[in-house]
Amino acid sequence: MDEFSLIDRIKTAVRARAADPRVVLGIGDDAAVLDAALGRIAVTTDAMIEGVHFGFDLCSPADVGERAVAVNLSDLAAMGARPLALLFSLEIPRSMDDGVVLAVMRAAGRAAARHSAPVVGGNVTSTPGPFGVTVTALGDVAGDAFLTRSGARPGDAILVSGPLGAAALGLILLRDHPGHARSHPSLVRSYRRPAARVELGMTLGSAGGVHAAIDVSDGLLADLGHVLDASKVGARIDVERIPLPRGARRVSRDLGLDPLDAALSGGDDYELLVFADPAEPAVQALRRVGTVTKARGLTLHRDGKRMILPDVRGYRHRK
Amino acid sequence: MDEFSLIDRIKTAVRARAADPRVVLGIGDDAAVLDAALGRIAVTTDAMIEGVHFGFDLCSPADVGERAVAVNLSDLAAMGARPLALLFSLEIPRSMDDGVVLAVMRAAGRAAARHSAPVVGGNVTSTPGPFGVTVTALGDVAGDAFLTRSGARPGDAILVSGPLGAAALGLILLRDHPGHARSHPSLVRSYRRPAARVELGMTLGSAGGVHAAIDVSDGLLADLGHVLDASKVGARIDVERIPLPRGARRVSRDLGLDPLDAALSGGDDYELLVFADPAEPAVQALRRVGTVTKARGLTLHRDGKRMILPDVRGYRHRK
Repeated sequence: MDEFSLIDRIKTAVRARAADPRVVLGIGDDAAVLDAALGRIAVTTDAMIEGVHFGFDLCSPADVGERAVAVNLSDLAAMGARPLALLFSLEIPRSMDDGVVLAVMRAAGRAAARHSAPVVGGNVTSTPGPFGVTVTALGDVAGDAFLTRSGARPGDAILVSGPLGAAALGLILLRDHPGHARSHPSLVRSYRRPAARVELGMTLGSAGGVHAAIDVSDGLLADLGHVLDASKVGARIDVERIPLPRGARRVSRDLGLDPLDAALSGGDDYELLVFADPAEPAVQALRRVGTVTKARGLTLHRDGKRMILPDVRGYRHRK
Repeated sequence: MDEFSLIDRIKTAVRARAADPRVVLGIGDDAAVLDAALGRIAVTTDAMIEGVHFGFDLCSPADVGERAVAVNLSDLAAMGARPLALLFSLEIPRSMDDGVVLAVMRAAGRAAARHSAPVVGGNVTSTPGPFGVTVTALGDVAGDAFLTRSGARPGDAILVSGPLGAAALGLILLRDHPGHARSHPSLVRSYRRPAARVELGMTLGSAGGVHAAIDVSDGLLADLGHVLDASKVGARIDVERIPLPRGARRVSRDLGLDPLDAALSGGDDYELLVFADPAEPAVQALRRVGTVTKARGLTLHRDGKRMILPDVRGYRHRK
């Protein structure tokens, strides 16, 4: 199939059911044109490469499409932005069946439509390398109602939007213990189809008492470290308060793992890590796991006792 | 070098000399935040893969950086948009020296700064495949002052912004006749460092008599075909009016090529192909090469005689 008929079929695969009035001009021209009604735009781009970020042995094409959307919408959520549009740049190995590409893009289109983020453009190229999906996500921002990594203040509560470590445990199950994976569908699903916290991000973005946010993609310690560095503050985390996913303790015991390891250093959960005035109404439903301190550095406490902290920078990795 | 120190060095490599007031938040957070002062945004993305779109045997790292910027800004130019910002997604083979990546990005940063298109974000990933650069370009658009592919009208003049075929001849020289390449620096440069017609695009975008535009990336016939299809019109082209690059006739004679072939079907020139009221002042400096017709289909004339037309769709290729 040539480039143009594949693009035509991708267009059909991703078309949202209803036209979005914010899309002045969608797929098919030199560029898309979007209404930036709130006056500011948040924009982010992230790549997913077969063999680096995922494998078709562990993920279906539909998982890959869902995940590519979630990873990028999660960055918008961490800014408190409202999703506006997505672009897809696809690198397709010459040996790859177009059916796989279309399955990826149909799932991506569904995930995009669920979050009102129409697919407005992109490009397709063949490659001698692995399959790759680079997504660009655009969001709307009103004035200063967005959340950076640099706004955390001493005294802020540190909160998480949900359990941590599920994706890491899901990946370990799939990769190393496929026989056990079937018994833990929710952990496996957390790895294959993480959910971006888009609605929550929008709520937090417009809440005055929320000072900073980041999504947990590299792991709690690494992503917390990014915020502490950018905000020039420190933090105390009470690890027993970190919510663990359902089944994490049992599966960790069965496999000889520490569920706290997965929660502290496992990436790809895409929950939000939020820094806010403890009295801010918008964060009352989130789980508080610690406090921002004026003194730089990070301390972990377990049941009131200080833990020896692994080197946070050690968690940084070249993806 | 790990991901983070490479990103830090890329940040330094691409930093524009002066801060751009439109960039509310640049590299280093979950997303960039941009002022969309004109109310609308044009956005496009394009990938360049080593071994598919370029080779380091024919292009220097600086050429690759310049070209990645030009290709994407050219799409904005074809929309009549004002460049606002660029994002870079880099896929880096594990064996690649970081110095090459930094040379690419330094040149990209210079090209971006020349067109007031600050680099505001991106991502870096290692890959088992070839080196790849996926650029996303954002531009400002005011109201309906943008140019689609679908606005061409019967009677419109068809104009080009400069000579066609230079990049194709430059590539043939470099690849097949390296001994001759040195004698034709401007053709070689057209291939290695095409110039996006950004200023012209902005002028045309706000000119009421300009009805459609596209940049010549796939070749005149292919790109003309896109506009004719989208606008549901036909065209007559007078091929002797197509401007050829300086030296094209001589080098074509020397190498046994037809310079018209390169002009009609050679891609990568990134001149603009413009469809406008013949009386529109903004297009008087452009070269008129034909006329839009109500009757669908494309006819080529040479010195008043109709030529047999190659199948336009035959020029379409999966890149």
